[in-house]
Amino acid sequence: MTEIGKKTWAIPGSNIPLEHTGEEPEFTSHDSLWVLNATDDDADVQMTLYYADREPVGPYHIEVGARRVRQVRFNDLIDPEAIPLETDYAAVVEANTPVVVQLTSLDTRRAEQTHSRSLGFPGE
Amino acid sequence: MTEIGKKTWAIPGSNIPLEHTGEEPEFTSHDSLWVLNATDDDADVQMTLYYADREPVGPYHIEVGARRVRQVRFNDLIDPEAIPLETDYAAVVEANTPVVVQLTSLDTRRAEQTHSRSLGFPGE
Amino acid sequence: MTEIGKKTWAIPGSNIPLEHTGEEPEFTSHDSLWVLNATDDDADVQMTLYYADREPVGPYHIEVGARRVRQVRFNDLIDPEAIPLETDYAAVVEANTPVVVQLTSLDTRRAEQTHSRSLGFPGE
Amino acid sequence: MTEIGKKTWAIPGSNIPLEHTGEEPEFTSHDSLWVLNATDDDADVQMTLYYADREPVGPYHIEVGARRVRQVRFNDLIDPEAIPLETDYAAVVEANTPVVVQLTSLDTRRAEQTHSRSLGFPGE
Repeated sequence: MTEIGKKTWAIPGSNIPLEHTGEEPEFTSHDSLWVLNATDDDADVQMTLYYADREPVGPYHIEVGARRVRQVRFNDLIDPEAIPLETDYAAVVEANTPVVVQLTSLDTRRAEQTHSRSLGFPGE
Repeated sequence: MTEIGKKTWAIPGSNIPLEHTGEEPEFTSHDSLWVLNATDDDADVQMTLYYADREPVGPYHIEVGARRVRQVRFNDLIDPEAIPLETDYAAVVEANTPVVVQLTSLDTRRAEQTHSRSLGFPGE
Repeated sequence: MTEIGKKTWAIPGSNIPLEHTGEEPEFTSHDSLWVLNATDDDADVQMTLYYADREPVGPYHIEVGARRVRQVRFNDLIDPEAIPLETDYAAVVEANTPVVVQLTSLDTRRAEQTHSRSLGFPGE
Repeated sequence: MTEIGKKTWAIPGSNIPLEHTGEEPEFTSHDSLWVLNATDDDADVQMTLYYADREPVGPYHIEVGARRVRQVRFNDLIDPEAIPLETDYAAVVEANTPVVVQLTSLDTRRAEQTHSRSLGFPGE
């Protein structure tokens, strides 16, 4: 198995729209964190959320098994608290094994949709 | 010739929609892997696909000639098995020469379309 | 606290459309700079804007508190001067602490919308 | 002046649609190369285009003045030859000074539009 990745990643900002058009949950406006764990060890991932005008919230615990990928909708996070919609936020992700991290966004506020996709920024 | 690239890359996650609107194959919802081989040696590329709840599948063999670029639709992969649609997946790409790797996605589930584009994450 | 980021970043080019459809300010065509400061020190950020046919303009001063993320709409910049619309521009961002920088764009010239998102390019 | 960037970059693949909707040239489907030269030296940039089934074509010469950004539409390239539409291509960009390189794409084949944006991959 190839071990590829880093143990620390940053998502430097996003904002989840409140409104959507189309069927839920497929077309709900949402952001997703993707974590690929290509190692042979289970990954214990801790995420901290940053905001514009208050202290960071976390950690959010995410388990990603060995040789697995996991998509986590930010909209579904509830512990330690739900993420507020229509609010600027950012994330720092730390894992005990090397992982690869990506953000995708789906915005369906209008009758159509628009996607964006970006790798996270890897730390040292 | 400039030799640019890395021998290991990760695509940390995507999901190909089942539905589409518009003419096939141009407007079929699909993901594509792009591999640029700017070296003077033919590239033997092996790709392994990762899933959320089962063991990785692979290798998929992709040949990219010296000084060539190749787009591979994930939807068209059949050996060792076709990729399931509407399923979270990720990929690790390994080559015997330095290459540069990118993912593009086209989603046409609605009457319009949305693109995304991201470099892969390069390994050491 | 994890200190992740770099002190110098480049946004290699964009162009903000003049026209838009939909409600202001939500659907105004705009570009946004995102700066995540995950450190325990307030960040003093200076941005210089580059153009195709004249000398750079700046610095624009942006304050990002310790453990905060900040979204700045390029359209709202006024000091030392407003950014011209429908004009190619680029940016270099320098901070006194490590930060992580991203560009997002929203283009609503047509009845629908399209997003793009890209990390900045980190300097040494 | 901050010198940020690298002298070698790769764009690992794209394909410019032939069709478009909306007014030309604003809404012509097109790809653009962006080159930011934040140094105090004029940049002499040479680009080589790679294809799926023939030898690379180039160099294309692009001048980017000191402290300037330049957007080049791939559709407008004519010397040494025009770029074929609806054809997979990739690019390697080499400069005599550090620059920062990005690809943007606009696809207007449908009544709406979709953007994508990605940094190039930097060489050593």
